[in-house]
Amino acid sequence: MTVDLGERSYPIHIGDDLLRRGDLLLPFLRGKQVCIVTNETVAPLYLSQVRQALADRQVTQVVLPDGEQYKTLDTVAQIYDHLLANGFSRSSTLVALGGGVVGDMTGFAAATYQRGVNFIQIPTTLLSQVDSSVGGKTGVNRPLGKNMVGAFYQPQCVLADTATLKTLPDRELKAGLAEVIKYGFINNKDFLDWLDRNLSALLARDAVALTKSVKVSCQEKAAIVAADETETGVRAILNLGHTFGHAIETAMGYGEWLHGEAVATGMVMAADLSWRLGLLSQADAIFVKAIIARAGLPVAPPPLSEPTFIGFMAKDKKADQGKIRFILLEALGKAVVKGDIPPAKLSATLTAGGALTER
Amino acid sequence: MTVDLGERSYPIHIGDDLLRRGDLLLPFLRGKQVCIVTNETVAPLYLSQVRQALADRQVTQVVLPDGEQYKTLDTVAQIYDHLLANGFSRSSTLVALGGGVVGDMTGFAAATYQRGVNFIQIPTTLLSQVDSSVGGKTGVNRPLGKNMVGAFYQPQCVLADTATLKTLPDRELKAGLAEVIKYGFINNKDFLDWLDRNLSALLARDAVALTKSVKVSCQEKAAIVAADETETGVRAILNLGHTFGHAIETAMGYGEWLHGEAVATGMVMAADLSWRLGLLSQADAIFVKAIIARAGLPVAPPPLSEPTFIGFMAKDKKADQGKIRFILLEALGKAVVKGDIPPAKLSATLTAGGALTER
Repeated sequence: MTVDLGERSYPIHIGDDLLRRGDLLLPFLRGKQVCIVTNETVAPLYLSQVRQALADRQVTQVVLPDGEQYKTLDTVAQIYDHLLANGFSRSSTLVALGGGVVGDMTGFAAATYQRGVNFIQIPTTLLSQVDSSVGGKTGVNRPLGKNMVGAFYQPQCVLADTATLKTLPDRELKAGLAEVIKYGFINNKDFLDWLDRNLSALLARDAVALTKSVKVSCQEKAAIVAADETETGVRAILNLGHTFGHAIETAMGYGEWLHGEAVATGMVMAADLSWRLGLLSQADAIFVKAIIARAGLPVAPPPLSEPTFIGFMAKDKKADQGKIRFILLEALGKAVVKGDIPPAKLSATLTAGGALTER
Repeated sequence: MTVDLGERSYPIHIGDDLLRRGDLLLPFLRGKQVCIVTNETVAPLYLSQVRQALADRQVTQVVLPDGEQYKTLDTVAQIYDHLLANGFSRSSTLVALGGGVVGDMTGFAAATYQRGVNFIQIPTTLLSQVDSSVGGKTGVNRPLGKNMVGAFYQPQCVLADTATLKTLPDRELKAGLAEVIKYGFINNKDFLDWLDRNLSALLARDAVALTKSVKVSCQEKAAIVAADETETGVRAILNLGHTFGHAIETAMGYGEWLHGEAVATGMVMAADLSWRLGLLSQADAIFVKAIIARAGLPVAPPPLSEPTFIGFMAKDKKADQGKIRFILLEALGKAVVKGDIPPAKLSATLTAGGALTER
């Protein structure tokens, strides 16, 4: 499939055992120099396969520590300095091999090294295959805010090898499912119904079900990104659960909650707020909570105070001059963006804890 | 005048006493939040004027240390964290008030804070008025290479107040003249002749002469940038003297040689190499050296070894897989890009020292 962004369009290949397919990558390499950026967890599993696929190039590698807490400017500087020490020119290519953290940092390094070099994504987690590898958002965290520094920068090509999901820890598989389910919530009721019926198969890593879930998720995201590349409008709905979720991630310390876990809880909170505002029926809000619980994901936020939540949410990139904007649900399969939420309603959601979606 | 880049086009206002002209800035501010980034030298001179011009906005300021050695990711991180601590949203505006270092870092911060916010340039040095504020190159240095990290990011507006040149130290005025003279060398023989006749007036800070030199320089640069925004072709000629010059700056330690000084010597070296290659007459090469000397700029490189020079030049962004490309002169007013320079000729230029352009 293709992400349609005019002259920045690029293909996404989804399938089994694609890592060895150098032929899929070669058209997108510029020059002989290739640097694979990966992490300590992924390197022993998949680095040699990708190196072999690129055997006719000058390939170097940067192996980063694993974890959201390393998604920093200092880590990106390690990539820059590796490229400089090895004489990488503007006609070179960075390959991100790993999850969302590796992809976000490698993409930001590619966007900014010598003001831009070629970039290929090989996502190896469910979360990165269905989310961060599509759409060109790259960046790093600051202590005061997640993803607050970055660039919109599209890869030349994405290779999503579903075989890599076999080695994914259970916790990360579930975290990825949070974003898969999100596409059902925001825009595709049929897919949500399919997920409802196939959740056990997905949790059991059924290859056919996983491949379908990656394909539909990428299609959903690609369509929304194509309509609004730099998030001036509709793209914001992809952030369902993220306003609450980023606050949880940032407040708890990067890496404590996985991104998908924080988003999962954030979606339950968004459904709860939607219900309190009269947008969504209580039955639908309960369905949101129930399917997330069945996916093995957390449905209650950590015990953060209301001012803590609000403080971090006011820093959200969607916020405008301190006014927080929320992605809410009008129905299962239909998201909307809303500002000016009555404080009492928001307060009720923030303090409900484990009683979200209940009266 | 306008830099013509389609939907990224922007105006450059050039004139005397423009700092107080809030009316020129207001159309380009997004939202109420404005952050002025400046440095310790410029702040006492001009910050209060610009703050007054923006009196109806929420204005904060970041005052950085002064000098090329501070053009680092760490300094840019200070800008990010100031913006985060003060709740700056995506609908805010960064204003760069200062020379090229302030402009490059503020532009990079604007390009990457929340993946891009509005950006206005108020250059206060001759160099930044004629060079770095036009064209959208932003970025920082790494220890292994100058401007190796950055983005192409256009400002919404440039305000070049020639009154600020009155407080510029002599050394910086001369460094700026290097880039002014460059436009004559690469593309405008008439302007070069005018500069030849008016050099004393420029050195004496004649307001009319300075304003004309800024205007013609910006026109020259804007025309070249409009033809090739991301430097895939003709824009490279703007780098006359820069391949040698960046090597001098990096090898000597950032801040030792001013950028304009290094470029000045680099242009003498480029003219010398052009002459040795039979592209340029010896008389013209001698003219290049003479006008640069008359501008009070250095015409001989520091005593760097040939391998040091070549090592740093091979890292130049114009280099392709280790092959250095040079901007050379075919005539006064006509630059060309050349690779594959015979090593003996290059060696002769690198080792000529003070005897450049002489036999």
